[in-house]
Amino acid sequence: MLSDQQMLRIPGPTPIPPSVQRAMSQPMIGHRDRDTKELLRKIKPKLKPIFGTVQNVEILAGSGTAGLEAAVINTVQPGDEVLVIVTGAFGERFVQICNAYNIITHQIHVSWGDAVTPEKVESYLQSHPSIKAVMATFCETSTGVLNPIQQLAKVIHQSSEALYIVDGVSSIGAIEANMDAWGIDILVTGSQKAFMLPPGLTFIAASSRAWEKIEANDQSRYYFDLRKYHHSSLLDSTPFTPSLTLLYGLEQVIKLLDQEGLANVFGRHDLMMKMMRAAFHNLGIPLLTSEKAASPTVTAIKPNTFQADELRKVLKDTFGLVTAGGQGELKGKIIRIGHMGYCSPTDILQVISSIEIGLKMIGMDITLGKGTQAAQKIFLRSGKH
Amino acid sequence: MLSDQQMLRIPGPTPIPPSVQRAMSQPMIGHRDRDTKELLRKIKPKLKPIFGTVQNVEILAGSGTAGLEAAVINTVQPGDEVLVIVTGAFGERFVQICNAYNIITHQIHVSWGDAVTPEKVESYLQSHPSIKAVMATFCETSTGVLNPIQQLAKVIHQSSEALYIVDGVSSIGAIEANMDAWGIDILVTGSQKAFMLPPGLTFIAASSRAWEKIEANDQSRYYFDLRKYHHSSLLDSTPFTPSLTLLYGLEQVIKLLDQEGLANVFGRHDLMMKMMRAAFHNLGIPLLTSEKAASPTVTAIKPNTFQADELRKVLKDTFGLVTAGGQGELKGKIIRIGHMGYCSPTDILQVISSIEIGLKMIGMDITLGKGTQAAQKIFLRSGKH
Amino acid sequence: MLSDQQMLRIPGPTPIPPSVQRAMSQPMIGHRDRDTKELLRKIKPKLKPIFGTVQNVEILAGSGTAGLEAAVINTVQPGDEVLVIVTGAFGERFVQICNAYNIITHQIHVSWGDAVTPEKVESYLQSHPSIKAVMATFCETSTGVLNPIQQLAKVIHQSSEALYIVDGVSSIGAIEANMDAWGIDILVTGSQKAFMLPPGLTFIAASSRAWEKIEANDQSRYYFDLRKYHHSSLLDSTPFTPSLTLLYGLEQVIKLLDQEGLANVFGRHDLMMKMMRAAFHNLGIPLLTSEKAASPTVTAIKPNTFQADELRKVLKDTFGLVTAGGQGELKGKIIRIGHMGYCSPTDILQVISSIEIGLKMIGMDITLGKGTQAAQKIFLRSGKH
Amino acid sequence: MLSDQQMLRIPGPTPIPPSVQRAMSQPMIGHRDRDTKELLRKIKPKLKPIFGTVQNVEILAGSGTAGLEAAVINTVQPGDEVLVIVTGAFGERFVQICNAYNIITHQIHVSWGDAVTPEKVESYLQSHPSIKAVMATFCETSTGVLNPIQQLAKVIHQSSEALYIVDGVSSIGAIEANMDAWGIDILVTGSQKAFMLPPGLTFIAASSRAWEKIEANDQSRYYFDLRKYHHSSLLDSTPFTPSLTLLYGLEQVIKLLDQEGLANVFGRHDLMMKMMRAAFHNLGIPLLTSEKAASPTVTAIKPNTFQADELRKVLKDTFGLVTAGGQGELKGKIIRIGHMGYCSPTDILQVISSIEIGLKMIGMDITLGKGTQAAQKIFLRSGKH
Repeated sequence: MLSDQQMLRIPGPTPIPPSVQRAMSQPMIGHRDRDTKELLRKIKPKLKPIFGTVQNVEILAGSGTAGLEAAVINTVQPGDEVLVIVTGAFGERFVQICNAYNIITHQIHVSWGDAVTPEKVESYLQSHPSIKAVMATFCETSTGVLNPIQQLAKVIHQSSEALYIVDGVSSIGAIEANMDAWGIDILVTGSQKAFMLPPGLTFIAASSRAWEKIEANDQSRYYFDLRKYHHSSLLDSTPFTPSLTLLYGLEQVIKLLDQEGLANVFGRHDLMMKMMRAAFHNLGIPLLTSEKAASPTVTAIKPNTFQADELRKVLKDTFGLVTAGGQGELKGKIIRIGHMGYCSPTDILQVISSIEIGLKMIGMDITLGKGTQAAQKIFLRSGKH
Repeated sequence: MLSDQQMLRIPGPTPIPPSVQRAMSQPMIGHRDRDTKELLRKIKPKLKPIFGTVQNVEILAGSGTAGLEAAVINTVQPGDEVLVIVTGAFGERFVQICNAYNIITHQIHVSWGDAVTPEKVESYLQSHPSIKAVMATFCETSTGVLNPIQQLAKVIHQSSEALYIVDGVSSIGAIEANMDAWGIDILVTGSQKAFMLPPGLTFIAASSRAWEKIEANDQSRYYFDLRKYHHSSLLDSTPFTPSLTLLYGLEQVIKLLDQEGLANVFGRHDLMMKMMRAAFHNLGIPLLTSEKAASPTVTAIKPNTFQADELRKVLKDTFGLVTAGGQGELKGKIIRIGHMGYCSPTDILQVISSIEIGLKMIGMDITLGKGTQAAQKIFLRSGKH
Repeated sequence: MLSDQQMLRIPGPTPIPPSVQRAMSQPMIGHRDRDTKELLRKIKPKLKPIFGTVQNVEILAGSGTAGLEAAVINTVQPGDEVLVIVTGAFGERFVQICNAYNIITHQIHVSWGDAVTPEKVESYLQSHPSIKAVMATFCETSTGVLNPIQQLAKVIHQSSEALYIVDGVSSIGAIEANMDAWGIDILVTGSQKAFMLPPGLTFIAASSRAWEKIEANDQSRYYFDLRKYHHSSLLDSTPFTPSLTLLYGLEQVIKLLDQEGLANVFGRHDLMMKMMRAAFHNLGIPLLTSEKAASPTVTAIKPNTFQADELRKVLKDTFGLVTAGGQGELKGKIIRIGHMGYCSPTDILQVISSIEIGLKMIGMDITLGKGTQAAQKIFLRSGKH
Repeated sequence: MLSDQQMLRIPGPTPIPPSVQRAMSQPMIGHRDRDTKELLRKIKPKLKPIFGTVQNVEILAGSGTAGLEAAVINTVQPGDEVLVIVTGAFGERFVQICNAYNIITHQIHVSWGDAVTPEKVESYLQSHPSIKAVMATFCETSTGVLNPIQQLAKVIHQSSEALYIVDGVSSIGAIEANMDAWGIDILVTGSQKAFMLPPGLTFIAASSRAWEKIEANDQSRYYFDLRKYHHSSLLDSTPFTPSLTLLYGLEQVIKLLDQEGLANVFGRHDLMMKMMRAAFHNLGIPLLTSEKAASPTVTAIKPNTFQADELRKVLKDTFGLVTAGGQGELKGKIIRIGHMGYCSPTDILQVISSIEIGLKMIGMDITLGKGTQAAQKIFLRSGKH
């Protein structure tokens, strides 16, 4: 195989565009100097439309999980009851965080691969008026499920006073989010997914209603205390040394998103999902999620005629094509393919046509080109050209 | 002034060596893949001698403050009494963290610019047997003070059962640390100082004694829960997505430190400090700290005949030489010059000779070259060549 | 379209592998210092197997044409008669160079898209005993023709005393060359093709027989005087300041070729050609060259049912897929697709499946996936996995 | 010594500014595509003021010597008589090029370290009316001499019809040149000196009078045929594949020069020279050149009390400070220090203060700081701040 070749098609970290890579090579500056302030001033307003909010989007140095924890502990207190919608491994992460903080979790579990229905949440909330917050995962990275975040917002606010906390880690920047219009109270994401950056930053925005809770909350926290970030933001600063390299990259990411146009970025992801699904459908390989529950950023297949990990190995060894396996109960049973950030419809064609070869190599009886053709048809029908 | 020129001589972030910059441009990989495991396997054993320990050094994505908070909340609980040695802004940060967690702080304050004496700590501990942890700052970045960390260890362990928690943020990698031999229980540092990396990583090592406390501690924490890191370390992994870009850089940093030899690295920093101090001494400009309390990584002057910030502005405008001002009570009163990481004795000569010009430019009556000469003499006497 | 995306599939310059890009960022060094000597010592022996020679391969700063000119003027003199085999634009370049130097050219022209036959050359040489050199193009970049260089060597040496000068610009590094075994007297290439580097270097190797001519030749030349390079090579140096950045890159290129293995590199290019051709064949789009005359590095199609440049425009606008048009008499009539250097079979699948879409977009009645399927079958049959 | 540290202070190649290094990492593009045309359109007009001409500045891929050869062979023919002013190794290079082409050279030799006087040239030309071209070196890199190029122009044009060909390799971009106003007919430079780029490009501008000669000249040449470059320039193109990586860097270099302002760039170099000379003068170390003949880009010392190469070795081993030795008859006798391009007055202070230490280390009895002080005084007096 050609050396130095890799197609990283896992659901994060995602490949870094060349211009972002270059931007990240800029020399260090003083993190309390004017240059850093100007950098933040250029970046921060541009994050708002990506989140669909007029609120500041706070930037923390840390993994996405750091952002989730910050979301939880700034708004909820030990002994509070919350409802966690668990549709996969990252829903479970919310539960683990709550458990660590003695927050009482009610849990709605749906099968891995399914999305939750608003009705289920609605009736649960109606019968549990003590719930103070609802936590949901926008795109469940472990399954490729997209939960109906907007519709959930509606039923949550109609049925309760609960805050609505959303993990947007594999979605924000790739999928439209209208935090303010929909009524999301806390929206979190990370840098290494649709933001096309290395891991290391997490982003949090909060509604006015959430900020009131945050201000009033006396839960112990320091590094994750969003009040500190809010206060520093007003001074175009950060409470702790920011991850400058990633901010340099972020400045360029925002330029790229601007050049393409956010609506086009979202459209591209939607198109890639449809191409992906049509291809597997035509190849007769079962998808983990239904049409309705599918995420534009990650597609999982659940083969019933071959070993998922055998195909993954062949793809890596033959093409340098790196995919993700299953987590938790789906370990060894699925293949997850990331298609977010620096990924285009032609990349999807490459992935699919390579997988077709991989399938043959592990002895599957498929028709070569059939998946590719299906994806091509979707592309042509989309009019995205 | 020459465009694109900057001499960043603040006490962090520090300049990135070219080879580290290149290493950080490596493409993303799967953070759960073999490649990441191999990267961690190469890096982690090499961190041990830098900390002077046989324990694992855990790597967290976050600022140095995140590391300090992790150190505190993994070992101490609300209501516990601790002694914080406050010699500047970063000593105060320990207090703030403890306050945020309802940990009861006893505080020994010494004037900013002074180091604490072991005697003071000893007598305090003897009269306060309830103290469960002592927190000290190795190099106090806000003043350039080096506290007597080894001697403190001795008195702490002789006078109490307290854990000894040390903030090594501006020292580890530049100054010798023998965590195990001295008896430090928790030692923390960050990436953007002597480690010559951008901000975004924090490093923590703990003694066996500390690990026992950590295991037993039921303080709520999730992202900062060191048990998770310890457990993942055993599998050559990390509990949360690591900051891959910085790990790439770290691999190269470790090569550079190996090439030079740790003892030489420490010697270089010691030499740079002595050159710095001799220069200012000869120019008749007061140093903030005494000889004994001086840190090899940052030198602060406290001018009494001119405005600190006026000189800083002239240096930046004329030479692109960026220095740091004072923090807190020393705001506007001192100039701090960082000399750690990617910084060499010749860089010190450059800084000093430029400052001499700056002093003249703001009207000071100094003899040009006098500081430089003093520094040169120190260099020659050191035999470091 | 996704910003910052480009698939550069022209027959040079070709994409730079990430690790080569990083290598090229190394800081400048003295070009007369030990470091440069060591760099040359590491690089130069590794070039020999790529050329298939025990001779030194000389490195000149300049475009490929500079190398061709150096080849000609070091071995031939004004008034000498030479035979130039013209199979396209780069054959004509030899003629132009000869014309500029008053070298008398005999020319064998074959239609653009065809290769020359050894018989034609043989009979020509037999009837023109005064010919002192024969110039041929290994891969004719303007058409994608691969001339039968080995067979030509045989007839040239059997029928004449002429030197055999070969332009290997789009072939060396991608196609097997056995300069010594075959009997090539001068072999030239450039950096921006199969060597995966930016343009700016040209490489020349000469046989013992050629070196005799070079030594004896009194044609005026200075920068292109190969004797100077030969002499400097013996001292691990270069006669003029070398293009350091490209040498840094070359060092890494050689590592990549070593890792893959030269035989595998050649096999990969052969496979990519076959995939390409099968795809277009199955789509019913005429190829410019015959099976036998096809180059492993560039494939040209000559559509008769659509405008070549219309498809090229659609591919660039829709996918960022950059292809090359025709030159000279083929301007506007063909599309040339480069597949050399940093290019793999999966990239071919991507190119083909994208072109299928492009064909539909310009109104062609093709079956989507049909070309892709043909390419996939070739891949599977190749056993290169 | 700190690993990864190097101060490259030779008279070329010179250090690359970080932003230029980043610019050079841009991905390849088609060299016949619109993007390359746009790049050339942005770069080429900005080269004119640097040369002081309204003529196009042509860009060739090759070393500086390639440019010198192009200058000679485009304007002069075998058998023509030319006058070469030889003030060092690069004057001799002109002679060698002429010799290679059977051009008859008259030579005015001045001692290495001296500049030529206009009077000498004037009287020579008056007594040799057959001379068709005069070749001079602006800055003689091998000695650090700056020849009186403007005054020479005057006497050449008053005394003859000869073309005036100037090697500006270590001067253009650092020293004011008014090609048109002064009457230079051909002006050549390279990329790796004041242009702050790696080696690999050479630049040539010609006067209208020179273009007439070039057009009419039937000397054999192809790659170096300036007519081809001129013709391509009109189409915003290049006749042969350009060195794209270096053009990317050049675009950024031009931005840096613009930001600083050309007059300031020239002033900075003049100041650095004066600082350098004052320092050595005060240290009692003989300079090779007189005040009047000194170049703003390179300073040579000719020690009479120690071995030049001994000091050079100490500086490299102790500080990573790389200087150049002597060439030709000055081999081992001088030290040349480059101060052009990415070099600032503070870098001069660093070099001088390091050299002072080096002098002590080899046993010289100098007063530390004395050279630095002299340089500082020059800086302060210059008002360049």
